Amino acid sequence: MTNVRVAGVGLTHFGSHPERTSRDLFAEAGAVALEDAGVPREDVESVFYGNFMGEVAEHQGHTGPLAAEALGVRAPATRYESACASSGVALRQAVKDVRNGEADVLVVGGAERMSHVGTDETTEGLAIAADDLYEVRAGLTFPGAYGLMARAYFEEHGGSREDLAHIAVKNHANAVGNEHAQYQKEITVEQALDSPTVASPLHLYDACPITDGASAAVLVSDDYADEHDLDAPVAVTGTGQGGDMMALQDRASMAASPAADDAAAEAYDDAGIDADDVDLAEVHDCFTIAEVLAVESLGFAERGDGITAAREGETRKDGRIPVNLSGGLKAKGHPVGATGVSQLAEVTSLLRGDHHNSDAVSGARVGVAHNAGGTVASATVHVLEVLD
Amino acid sequence: MTNVRVAGVGLTHFGSHPERTSRDLFAEAGAVALEDAGVPREDVESVFYGNFMGEVAEHQGHTGPLAAEALGVRAPATRYESACASSGVALRQAVKDVRNGEADVLVVGGAERMSHVGTDETTEGLAIAADDLYEVRAGLTFPGAYGLMARAYFEEHGGSREDLAHIAVKNHANAVGNEHAQYQKEITVEQALDSPTVASPLHLYDACPITDGASAAVLVSDDYADEHDLDAPVAVTGTGQGGDMMALQDRASMAASPAADDAAAEAYDDAGIDADDVDLAEVHDCFTIAEVLAVESLGFAERGDGITAAREGETRKDGRIPVNLSGGLKAKGHPVGATGVSQLAEVTSLLRGDHHNSDAVSGARVGVAHNAGGTVASATVHVLEVLD
Repeated sequence: MTNVRVAGVGLTHFGSHPERTSRDLFAEAGAVALEDAGVPREDVESVFYGNFMGEVAEHQGHTGPLAAEALGVRAPATRYESACASSGVALRQAVKDVRNGEADVLVVGGAERMSHVGTDETTEGLAIAADDLYEVRAGLTFPGAYGLMARAYFEEHGGSREDLAHIAVKNHANAVGNEHAQYQKEITVEQALDSPTVASPLHLYDACPITDGASAAVLVSDDYADEHDLDAPVAVTGTGQGGDMMALQDRASMAASPAADDAAAEAYDDAGIDADDVDLAEVHDCFTIAEVLAVESLGFAERGDGITAAREGETRKDGRIPVNLSGGLKAKGHPVGATGVSQLAEVTSLLRGDHHNSDAVSGARVGVAHNAGGTVASATVHVLEVLD
Repeated sequence: MTNVRVAGVGLTHFGSHPERTSRDLFAEAGAVALEDAGVPREDVESVFYGNFMGEVAEHQGHTGPLAAEALGVRAPATRYESACASSGVALRQAVKDVRNGEADVLVVGGAERMSHVGTDETTEGLAIAADDLYEVRAGLTFPGAYGLMARAYFEEHGGSREDLAHIAVKNHANAVGNEHAQYQKEITVEQALDSPTVASPLHLYDACPITDGASAAVLVSDDYADEHDLDAPVAVTGTGQGGDMMALQDRASMAASPAADDAAAEAYDDAGIDADDVDLAEVHDCFTIAEVLAVESLGFAERGDGITAAREGETRKDGRIPVNLSGGLKAKGHPVGATGVSQLAEVTSLLRGDHHNSDAVSGARVGVAHNAGGTVASATVHVLEVLD
């Protein structure tokens, strides 16, 4: 069975690009990835594309073929939609196809254009990732849902708004120097605490922004990499996916994310590693509390200790297990459909040593990407390793 | 490598179910499929789900986890969206995963709820499967697009409205006795010709209806089938997918569908068969002209001769190669996200001999399902065979 080599990665700037379409953003990211890989368009056998709110924000479905067309590739193309995990699930399927010999060269990525429709409309558009019958019609939006999750976590395990603020501060600090990041500036705990309430106990600086952007990666087999003498030292060695009940009310606990637990367990098993082997991670911090849950799902802290890890700096650049060296969704931004593969791009870059924060993890061999959809009704985890 | 056995299939009635949600429809189809297979819910390892217009029609995205939940399955679940080929692409990925040993038991299916939002809104909702920038904003809808394709076909190859009417008449005749079909009644060529113009040269009886409904199938490995002594004589032996430019204006010809040509060639090659080996087919006749193009893509007629095959009855129940014995999208109905897997269900049933039209193809060993998205910017073809 071949390795699934990450031959190249590409990102647009994450931020506000209201004048650009998703397809245009993806064309840029894809071109960067192909250039990074040294792979010609003609060799791409299929495109796996994550996009969440095309229908709502751009009056556009059927975005798989459009993405391929924008990239200048005539090949089968499929759009995956799993809310904020859209390109995570696309990635998983692409990994399986290369591994199983279904293809030698695939492009996987995603894009989202959100900022042009306005904050209210975007919040409404995002809400369709929750259960319309049992959550949305009752008035629940995602800040509200994660607010409930934070409150449940505090009640079950303790913790405070200040603990969460450390996550925002860390991720903003990590984003400084990341040319792709929406916010390349530091903030303080005081600023985070003083920011306006969004959905108690979450305040503005607990939430990721609304972001336009795109991501892409080129995955190739060993045979293709060898034949074309590609410099592709990093491979996806593990993939996992989990699912859960859609509505929070149907979960045994709102202070845990079993879909991500399952995804991590499967990905680690697939790669033949455990949490102790991981050197760094990009996780789905759509809200600060989400990073706490992710850190626990990935086994970097026991259940209920993720908040302590945040408070004590264990996930900082200089900590035991650096998390979101890119700046995470919080500071780098969260163009929904692009996020899963953007995490792959960041981990790849960190492991290759060409990331703005590579120095903080020099010698790192194993990285993990954790992507979640909705209130973690779906999740994917991927393990990346430097090949010997 | 294992066979990909179709252990069970399930369909709801296709028609108008405005009081039921997509998830509810899928729960019914999935339960029928599991019962047909004799497979317990607990054994399902993943759900692959096609849904097209959930965002527009039901204010609901992230429908993969919802579909699994409705079925009573806690497992990873992924929503695929490729316009009218949504469950065709879901099926393709599920087939690859079983074949490659990624899973032993998968449920694949799809659902759509459209009728409750009204015809104008549905036409508008369907339009998002076309290129918003270059087609939809210019006023193009799908009847218009296929009208252009029919006109181009007539100009390149000849043919008439009356030739197309034979397809509608045939498919309505085939649907009589299909308990799942939206229209279980015969029509005449005169009725088709006299029906109101929709988008010249296409009239009302050239178009499939607006339909609510769901489909599901249980795919299993040989090992699982043997271990559980399942009666699953039919397997998916070939899968193919093709892609094309989204907008008609970017195609070399509007009178052909190269994405489907590619999908058919790949699927036949994958199964080790050619067109002459095929005993029956379910094809994507969203409009009568689409069946003509499909018949040509599948190699049942030379380019330009598909219209002759229709006129001369070659694709009738008693013809050389029976097409759409279910009634097709035209008479059985077209719940968009459900259609690809519903074709699989019909072909399976025909090959097993438990279809209302099985007598017409007794002894049939090889069937094909052809599913197309948009104006065939995406397409899948699957080959099913009775195992020895």
